[in-house]
Amino acid sequence: MTAPDLPSGARAVARCDELRFAPYSDMEGGLFRAYLTPAYAAAQGALSGWMEAAGMTVRTDAAANLVGRYEGAVRGAPALVIGSHLDSVRDGGPYDGPLGVMLGVEVVAALHAQGRRLPFPIEVYAFGDEEGSRFPAAMLTSRAVAGTLDAAALDVADGEGVTLAQALGGMPMAPVRVERSRETLAPGVSTTLDTNGAGSVGLGDVASYLTARRDPAATLAYLEAHIEQGPVLEADGLAVGTVTGIAAQLRYAVTVSGMAGHAGTTAMRLRRDPLAGAAAMVLAVEQLARGDNSDVVATVGTIEALPGAANVIPGEVRFTIDVRSGSEARRDGVAAAILERLREIAGVRALELDVALIHDLAASPCDPALMDLMDAALDAAGQPVRRLVSGAGHDAMVMAALSPTAMLFIRCRDGISHNPAEHVEPADVEIALQVMLGFIERLGETFAACT
Amino acid sequence: MTAPDLPSGARAVARCDELRFAPYSDMEGGLFRAYLTPAYAAAQGALSGWMEAAGMTVRTDAAANLVGRYEGAVRGAPALVIGSHLDSVRDGGPYDGPLGVMLGVEVVAALHAQGRRLPFPIEVYAFGDEEGSRFPAAMLTSRAVAGTLDAAALDVADGEGVTLAQALGGMPMAPVRVERSRETLAPGVSTTLDTNGAGSVGLGDVASYLTARRDPAATLAYLEAHIEQGPVLEADGLAVGTVTGIAAQLRYAVTVSGMAGHAGTTAMRLRRDPLAGAAAMVLAVEQLARGDNSDVVATVGTIEALPGAANVIPGEVRFTIDVRSGSEARRDGVAAAILERLREIAGVRALELDVALIHDLAASPCDPALMDLMDAALDAAGQPVRRLVSGAGHDAMVMAALSPTAMLFIRCRDGISHNPAEHVEPADVEIALQVMLGFIERLGETFAACT
Repeated sequence: MTAPDLPSGARAVARCDELRFAPYSDMEGGLFRAYLTPAYAAAQGALSGWMEAAGMTVRTDAAANLVGRYEGAVRGAPALVIGSHLDSVRDGGPYDGPLGVMLGVEVVAALHAQGRRLPFPIEVYAFGDEEGSRFPAAMLTSRAVAGTLDAAALDVADGEGVTLAQALGGMPMAPVRVERSRETLAPGVSTTLDTNGAGSVGLGDVASYLTARRDPAATLAYLEAHIEQGPVLEADGLAVGTVTGIAAQLRYAVTVSGMAGHAGTTAMRLRRDPLAGAAAMVLAVEQLARGDNSDVVATVGTIEALPGAANVIPGEVRFTIDVRSGSEARRDGVAAAILERLREIAGVRALELDVALIHDLAASPCDPALMDLMDAALDAAGQPVRRLVSGAGHDAMVMAALSPTAMLFIRCRDGISHNPAEHVEPADVEIALQVMLGFIERLGETFAACT
Repeated sequence: MTAPDLPSGARAVARCDELRFAPYSDMEGGLFRAYLTPAYAAAQGALSGWMEAAGMTVRTDAAANLVGRYEGAVRGAPALVIGSHLDSVRDGGPYDGPLGVMLGVEVVAALHAQGRRLPFPIEVYAFGDEEGSRFPAAMLTSRAVAGTLDAAALDVADGEGVTLAQALGGMPMAPVRVERSRETLAPGVSTTLDTNGAGSVGLGDVASYLTARRDPAATLAYLEAHIEQGPVLEADGLAVGTVTGIAAQLRYAVTVSGMAGHAGTTAMRLRRDPLAGAAAMVLAVEQLARGDNSDVVATVGTIEALPGAANVIPGEVRFTIDVRSGSEARRDGVAAAILERLREIAGVRALELDVALIHDLAASPCDPALMDLMDAALDAAGQPVRRLVSGAGHDAMVMAALSPTAMLFIRCRDGISHNPAEHVEPADVEIALQVMLGFIERLGETFAACT
């Protein structure tokens, strides 16, 4: 068990570490905790205890998210939601997701220890499915809470043919403390309650899944702390940073066609080699993104040469290009330059080029006023103010449809995530906790001033 | 049936065309004729008739090669062997292999029509396995004839688990005409014969497989005509060319390792992207081979990025490099320059580089005196003299262990082979036939002068 007298940041880290092994992982020798699995239920059980110990009441919503609530001073005020996710990728790291949840618990524990109530309640959400590592969908649970999920999206099955409905139907759901949680439910949503005001432990039902949606009017803001999953803070020697938003993303599937031939019999001067052309294109992607000297990143992550034999000049090469930036304009500028260069290279080499746009995700900016509050909290904690964009997606980008969002990034070693080598320093997590408390303090002042 | 009154070159082409369909192919809608299959037996049956019509006696050797023999004027003289292969790759073209066999038949038919006998006999070999498209081995049959095959190499099975022994045991073997073929057998090789001097039709037996070896003393030279399988003759506007030999070949497996990362979260300046490095290396391979301005060719035919996801900067990239030249020195010079450049690129980009040499095949030069005879025959046929190296392997490279070899390449459209689109012009094949007859005429003069 986790030592109860650890400093709060270190305790958040230790709890993540505890959840990396059985029964909280379904993988031998590593961490794999997918949505609605035995490991997921076990982790909810442990977290439920930690939430209660921090002074929260605990419920499970209709999407099987575990939610802890800490009341505010003003009854009926909209809640600050602090969230992140409890699920992991296969053989993943322990902090991607759970650390943000544990920091939410520590925030409340710190307030509770001081007997403090803010003008608004705090609800800590442990989302169940951010990674999409079980069903062919991602962020199912935050989309349900934000009210952006279609019923059609629930008709999915995992790799073994188990449907979401079946998985949810086998999931024990924690009690619902009605007197405290009813006010957060969206209008028209009803719950089955027992007479003493607490819901009994039952099983999930996919038919009520979309009732997990929150009422926007009952939601003041969304705050998420997360490991950076990149090397920027580490490179700059910073423990934490204010996130400006989730990057806008374009993804292309590129096919370059030339003339296949025998590697031994086709003289160099007679070749139309699509792999040599693709190589020039891969270098152009790198050069143009780097040359923008901005937050734009561009990546070729997959490449395939067909037919794919050592003694055959390929006839066709396929690769992907992923372009991201906090600014759609910067992203689009670099993407356009890349596509122009690709056409030039294909033209010079007499290759055929086909480019298909397969993703176009708009940027999801964090709320400017909340970013200012976060910067102020950083400064008050003695930290340099640093803003950075998130190249990866997070529940926050979904929750932005429900309320203003704020995100705090925490340095992780070598930028590694989705890997057992994922690592954070407890001292950095302690700083993150202090910044979050400072942010909430300032949010309370702003809220009080506005009401 | 093939019209019997076609010009000889056109008839050779028409016979190849006839063999591309059932019963001479085991593939619906395309040509696939693997060693020891029903299609292979059917093709031997048709070829046997054509050989006999051309004045040859026909036998099957112990490796199930079909062999036609046309006697010479001098009894006991070593034979000129003309050969190529009857098997194909899956969904292959009709000329790669069979055309050389059919030209051998046409050579004999032309001599027979004139009632001419050369100072030496001619044996036309239709080899059974050059492509290696059935068993995990290639050139089994020419290696058996050249005497370079190990018994251990016979212990192979095809993709369906049928062993070479089983396949051979189910293969009907054509009669052996003893009185004419005994002298070509290697010393110590015995055959089961019936009393009238002709072997009965029996089944193959793998135990006697290696007895297919020819006596070097009974082999004057080996001549093979083959489609070029490359675009050089076409680019130079030539119908045929003298082959100088089979290229020397080096093959490397290259692994480039960098730092995997999230495509969205890793700033460009912080990347060590092995795919960008590999792209620079692929371009270097092309530039250095092209810059040599020689017959050196270098090819990257396969490439793989790991883990291979559009949103992940690869951590490792693997590719192959194939380098060939008629000259081992030129090949080695370019290969050394490539490896040096690869090390430079890896160094500049802080990538790890691992290069493994996986093949090192020496050049198999054709016989210089025979090349001169071929050139003279080209000139006499009114063709420009053009020598070119074969980047692809052929039975000739195996037969070089048995006797001096000569090869004649025939232009094929767009350099395409191993493909249904493979095409030769009958007029080019007619030229090839005249050059072969001229070569044989000159070989006869040389032989007569030496004996």
